[in-house]
Amino acid sequence: MSNPPVPPAGGSCRGSHSATLRAHMRQVEPSDRGYRPRQPRHGAVAAYRGPVSEMTDERTGWLSRDDLELARERLPMVYVDAIPVRVDARGEVISLGLLLRAMPDGSISRAPVSGRVLYGERIRDALMRHLEKDLGSMALPQVPASPQPFTVVEYFPDPEVSGFFDPRQHAVSLAFVVPVHGDCMPSTSALDLVWMTPDEVASDDVALEMTGGQDRLLRLALAHVGVLP
Amino acid sequence: MSNPPVPPAGGSCRGSHSATLRAHMRQVEPSDRGYRPRQPRHGAVAAYRGPVSEMTDERTGWLSRDDLELARERLPMVYVDAIPVRVDARGEVISLGLLLRAMPDGSISRAPVSGRVLYGERIRDALMRHLEKDLGSMALPQVPASPQPFTVVEYFPDPEVSGFFDPRQHAVSLAFVVPVHGDCMPSTSALDLVWMTPDEVASDDVALEMTGGQDRLLRLALAHVGVLP
Amino acid sequence: MSNPPVPPAGGSCRGSHSATLRAHMRQVEPSDRGYRPRQPRHGAVAAYRGPVSEMTDERTGWLSRDDLELARERLPMVYVDAIPVRVDARGEVISLGLLLRAMPDGSISRAPVSGRVLYGERIRDALMRHLEKDLGSMALPQVPASPQPFTVVEYFPDPEVSGFFDPRQHAVSLAFVVPVHGDCMPSTSALDLVWMTPDEVASDDVALEMTGGQDRLLRLALAHVGVLP
Amino acid sequence: MSNPPVPPAGGSCRGSHSATLRAHMRQVEPSDRGYRPRQPRHGAVAAYRGPVSEMTDERTGWLSRDDLELARERLPMVYVDAIPVRVDARGEVISLGLLLRAMPDGSISRAPVSGRVLYGERIRDALMRHLEKDLGSMALPQVPASPQPFTVVEYFPDPEVSGFFDPRQHAVSLAFVVPVHGDCMPSTSALDLVWMTPDEVASDDVALEMTGGQDRLLRLALAHVGVLP
Repeated sequence: MSNPPVPPAGGSCRGSHSATLRAHMRQVEPSDRGYRPRQPRHGAVAAYRGPVSEMTDERTGWLSRDDLELARERLPMVYVDAIPVRVDARGEVISLGLLLRAMPDGSISRAPVSGRVLYGERIRDALMRHLEKDLGSMALPQVPASPQPFTVVEYFPDPEVSGFFDPRQHAVSLAFVVPVHGDCMPSTSALDLVWMTPDEVASDDVALEMTGGQDRLLRLALAHVGVLP
Repeated sequence: MSNPPVPPAGGSCRGSHSATLRAHMRQVEPSDRGYRPRQPRHGAVAAYRGPVSEMTDERTGWLSRDDLELARERLPMVYVDAIPVRVDARGEVISLGLLLRAMPDGSISRAPVSGRVLYGERIRDALMRHLEKDLGSMALPQVPASPQPFTVVEYFPDPEVSGFFDPRQHAVSLAFVVPVHGDCMPSTSALDLVWMTPDEVASDDVALEMTGGQDRLLRLALAHVGVLP
Repeated sequence: MSNPPVPPAGGSCRGSHSATLRAHMRQVEPSDRGYRPRQPRHGAVAAYRGPVSEMTDERTGWLSRDDLELARERLPMVYVDAIPVRVDARGEVISLGLLLRAMPDGSISRAPVSGRVLYGERIRDALMRHLEKDLGSMALPQVPASPQPFTVVEYFPDPEVSGFFDPRQHAVSLAFVVPVHGDCMPSTSALDLVWMTPDEVASDDVALEMTGGQDRLLRLALAHVGVLP
Repeated sequence: MSNPPVPPAGGSCRGSHSATLRAHMRQVEPSDRGYRPRQPRHGAVAAYRGPVSEMTDERTGWLSRDDLELARERLPMVYVDAIPVRVDARGEVISLGLLLRAMPDGSISRAPVSGRVLYGERIRDALMRHLEKDLGSMALPQVPASPQPFTVVEYFPDPEVSGFFDPRQHAVSLAFVVPVHGDCMPSTSALDLVWMTPDEVASDDVALEMTGGQDRLLRLALAHVGVLP
């Protein structure tokens, strides 16, 4: 029975998304967020040991955090963005997965799966690693057969350059839509995961819960799969 | 564990492909093929009731065979081509499925899944219908989330126009690579199904077993998924 | 000096678009539109001899109008949609061209270049023919090198099926973004042509001036070229 | 008349390609190549001051050569590959441009336009910079409107990983097909430029004149534009 079982409305990956977001906002506000004045670059990231993707990268030891900081000021970083989707039996997208996580800009925001490609790592392996890290090991993501991303996102420290913003770095991110057929359980790096319909994802309300231009990235993904409202 | 179980080498979808092809060639040669002089357009198709995709279309009753013949001389037909593939856990293509079937030009050839889009039918539904018809109902094909074909094939009655040839008609075919995760059992319309590696598919030997330019279509598919040798 | 000369704001392809639309609406309302009761399928089209693309197709004689009507009730038609764009020297889209024309549903609406692929005609030639017919012979359209459309639009007589609507027929349309570098002069089949920025095209106001779901097609095009707001 | 003027057979961008290659091979062999024992990483590159793309990057001062060396051992680099093509009036590719240049592996090989994306630089600007550097300022390249590359090439120092090889680094390269309408004049970084038909580019002879898997990259490009033989 491997065909996409649509997650039950009340399943572990789901919930009233605005309620969830508000709960988490409360949870981290105000005390935690108040402790960040001396960490201009990514304080929030440092404050929340668990949910930050860089932690995992660091542990793999390809680059010390200091070296990474240095390189980030000099070179564009290679990233992948993966939009997890549920599809029906004919492959049409019926819902999109958004994580709730601490973002580089210090906010707690909705976001797709995203992370760095390591030295020596294949794009496919980076996608699998970040998907597993964020959705758990039972998510069974189906990374597309083609290496062609549906778009390339250019994140800059200056939000004016491209509209995509990352205060830490210039990142060039290959973006993929990834059907997910198994059970998702947001793991180390995310506070929560919700599934939304294309209409919800494209709504102004949800756009406001995203940062760095990722609401726009999600509309590009909706367009690519033909379900942009 | 629903991740793509690679079909066992000796499974129902497999076999020594050149042996199989030769066996089938013997089976239909020479007597059957000798009885076709008064059917200039698609005699072989008429001779083999089973394996011809048009049969199924006809039964659905959208268009009588005579009307279809008439329209085929006046309008381009809408088709889909689907290349069934097996992928590994990271989504990379490891083998491609080729049917053995009676072709419009009267030959018995290797071919991808291919067929007409009916009036009122969505592209996705046409893909699912032809995949199920050719691979059986347990194949669990994963039609891509995006409606964008990897290429568009223009078949003409004159082989010189585009290099893609169909003696019956001008067909505009949307081509997709479709990962297949279940058990395949070539059903009504195909004599056999074999799985080949990208290297085998791109080889001159296998190209010679295809007609109408479909060897080239398969190389385009290999290129799209990044495994063209 | 063949690099994209952005059309001057007051050039022949331009004008205050809402003023133009209103002027044309007046011009055809209400008398002309009142004469259409006995032409349920495409009365408006018949009423306005000039601006309707089918006229041109008919003249080429591939299919009589009666036969075409008959085929349209039985077979999906092959179409192309072309979104004309102006690009800057780096290839980024800065404006999109929208025609003003009599539509199959009887309205006068903004629309991209769109038309049927004829029997025996290559997709590229159909694109060039419709672009030249609608933008004039000096437009110098640059049809993309790849035959891969950015999306496939499925128009149905029932607006519920896909959200794309054509009262005359089921049409499968290959959609392309086409940079245009020359001088445009809406010719036989369009009342006017205006160039709009991506923001204008994506606005609710302009969406209301389109029919058949083509406002959505334009947002898909904006997404494909990375300039969806 | 800005539509793609096909370069005259004997024009400045052209010549008997095998003769040209042999002439250049003689020119640098054997003496120059013998002076490289103490430059294990990219000796040939150091030997030929002119034709090496890294020179230009270095001059821009984003990163000293030493720092770049260090980063190259720790992080994947962001690259662009651009395949210059001549297209006919309908946009179909009729020839592809190949540079003759000193490669990172020390060979003199045929190669597409290729180079690093700098910190803070847009992909489009990197493409324009490298195209201008290699083809001259009058080439008038038409970078595609969509940011979506036709494929992503992963170059590794180990040729076994992906089949794409760069002894200096792990590079992730976004590959684009770029129509060129003006006059080309290989400038600082290339020894020569030849235009070849799709058949020539796909031939075994020409494949042997390329290194690092770029013969395969060119076949992927041919497939993407539908002219792979």
